[in-house]
Amino acid sequence: MDEQDFVNFLRGNFEFTRGTGIGDDASVVPFGDGFQLITKDILVEGVHFSLDYFSLEELALKSLAVNVSDIAAMGGDPQYFYVGIGFPPYLDEADLRQFYKGLAAGCEKWGIELAGGDYSTAPRLFISITLVGFASKPVFRSGARPGDLIGITGSTGESALGLELLKRGIRDPYFQRRHIVVEPELAKGKLLAQEASSMIDVSDGIAIDLKRLLTASNVGGEIYVEYLPIDSRMREAASAHELDPVELALTGGEDYVLLFTVPVDREKTLRQSFGRLELNYHIIGKATSAAGTLTVFCEGAPLKLNRSGYDHFPQGG
Amino acid sequence: MDEQDFVNFLRGNFEFTRGTGIGDDASVVPFGDGFQLITKDILVEGVHFSLDYFSLEELALKSLAVNVSDIAAMGGDPQYFYVGIGFPPYLDEADLRQFYKGLAAGCEKWGIELAGGDYSTAPRLFISITLVGFASKPVFRSGARPGDLIGITGSTGESALGLELLKRGIRDPYFQRRHIVVEPELAKGKLLAQEASSMIDVSDGIAIDLKRLLTASNVGGEIYVEYLPIDSRMREAASAHELDPVELALTGGEDYVLLFTVPVDREKTLRQSFGRLELNYHIIGKATSAAGTLTVFCEGAPLKLNRSGYDHFPQGG
Repeated sequence: MDEQDFVNFLRGNFEFTRGTGIGDDASVVPFGDGFQLITKDILVEGVHFSLDYFSLEELALKSLAVNVSDIAAMGGDPQYFYVGIGFPPYLDEADLRQFYKGLAAGCEKWGIELAGGDYSTAPRLFISITLVGFASKPVFRSGARPGDLIGITGSTGESALGLELLKRGIRDPYFQRRHIVVEPELAKGKLLAQEASSMIDVSDGIAIDLKRLLTASNVGGEIYVEYLPIDSRMREAASAHELDPVELALTGGEDYVLLFTVPVDREKTLRQSFGRLELNYHIIGKATSAAGTLTVFCEGAPLKLNRSGYDHFPQGG
Repeated sequence: MDEQDFVNFLRGNFEFTRGTGIGDDASVVPFGDGFQLITKDILVEGVHFSLDYFSLEELALKSLAVNVSDIAAMGGDPQYFYVGIGFPPYLDEADLRQFYKGLAAGCEKWGIELAGGDYSTAPRLFISITLVGFASKPVFRSGARPGDLIGITGSTGESALGLELLKRGIRDPYFQRRHIVVEPELAKGKLLAQEASSMIDVSDGIAIDLKRLLTASNVGGEIYVEYLPIDSRMREAASAHELDPVELALTGGEDYVLLFTVPVDREKTLRQSFGRLELNYHIIGKATSAAGTLTVFCEGAPLKLNRSGYDHFPQGG
């Protein structure tokens, strides 16, 4: 069972009549003159992070940030959150205070508030955050139509490179910071909400997350390696460590940029609204009618990927 | 740092301006013609449960039930929920399906819906559920006044007895079921919402949970052992296993009955509204002006407790 099978299994067994639930970055329920968004992301020590290279404060900020990114991916504003923490015996009260210091910094940074939560001892550290937000016009994964342009708000692969260097014990503050510190694209998400036909944040890599968006929209997609935003610093660092910058950009997770589709006739307006705030995005391909397929072209020829990114689901069983 | 210190620490460092947050069974935020309630409870293998005596289906139901109980303790109706699951390598896909089968049974039982969640591998199983509910008139922990009667909706200590027998490997389906199967007091919670001045559910034992309610209300309390609802079956089973039924009733956790205060002049109305539905509760004591103190009387004399119930917080650090 992979994630898509799991989503299908849940959809087959659970109905959500109050709004849109399973299978997007956040649930969407009508609320006043707009929609309440709720998202939940869990982070597990040894799976999503190691305390070898995360301080408790950095971890708290990242735990919040990945949830804030889900709200950004719906075109919303984050508001308040609930924290569940499973706290292991090898950490102490000072660590716990550092964690909450990080949460307080996140509150300040993203204008959000702590509304509750739960605490338990646990054999290993885990964090479960539920974040509530609001959108007057939410954007779903499912709205892409054949012919729509596929865009991305920033570079990918940099977090994965940083993580790889951390694992190898090679010091590189720039790329390591790209892994440790997540900057959710809230401002861009809100601009995109006005024009985009679909949107998702890149948590598991372009290859996996774009596939999710295309599947949800029942369309296919083509992207072009030449258009991927990979800067010279990234190319040089990857090459210096014998890594392929293109593979990293396509399959590396945790950059938390936004991947979206926009109808061709709305793209000019989108470009203008970004330009007014001196912001940028990159068109990297287009949606097609070949539902469920994603083709990556390099110099005009389809590229084979070695990996398709991360998938948290075990096989078999 | 105990739980009260932790709540004070959080309150000192985090402000929740949208409603009432930290320190009650659920957060309360104005919503339409009432209030949205949100609660989050985490359950960790080895801390809250053992797979030696919980099936995945039973575990799913209990994970939901303890959250439903939090909504009951606010006088609300549960609506929909988010599930985070940390899934260990020693369980397989069939186990995962059993877990979701249990969630589906809970949906049916409490009229609630699954709205989203997150999945991760993890070294040991944990469940994090966030449940959304609604109350037109929520009841807080903080409303008790000196002179109010203290009541409880059912027996305590039975879950703790069941757990103790499970740990000892002694088969006793009746009391073991009291530990495995939680029946949140939703109907009673809604009746209580009309008259009670404060309310909490008994998750960690009367001694601890009543202390929490009294502290939140800035009052004291006296309860009388003679009035505790302990039936003959419980007395006999406890004695047969050399356990003190009164100590179990005072300190045993996880019965998930409701503990409340009611002004003397509202108690008659409360009794009538319960009677109309053939429901019952027990008055076990009264709130006093001796803020922060809880005295347990037995045959007219104050009782010393050996334990005060469970507290998840580590000391020192």
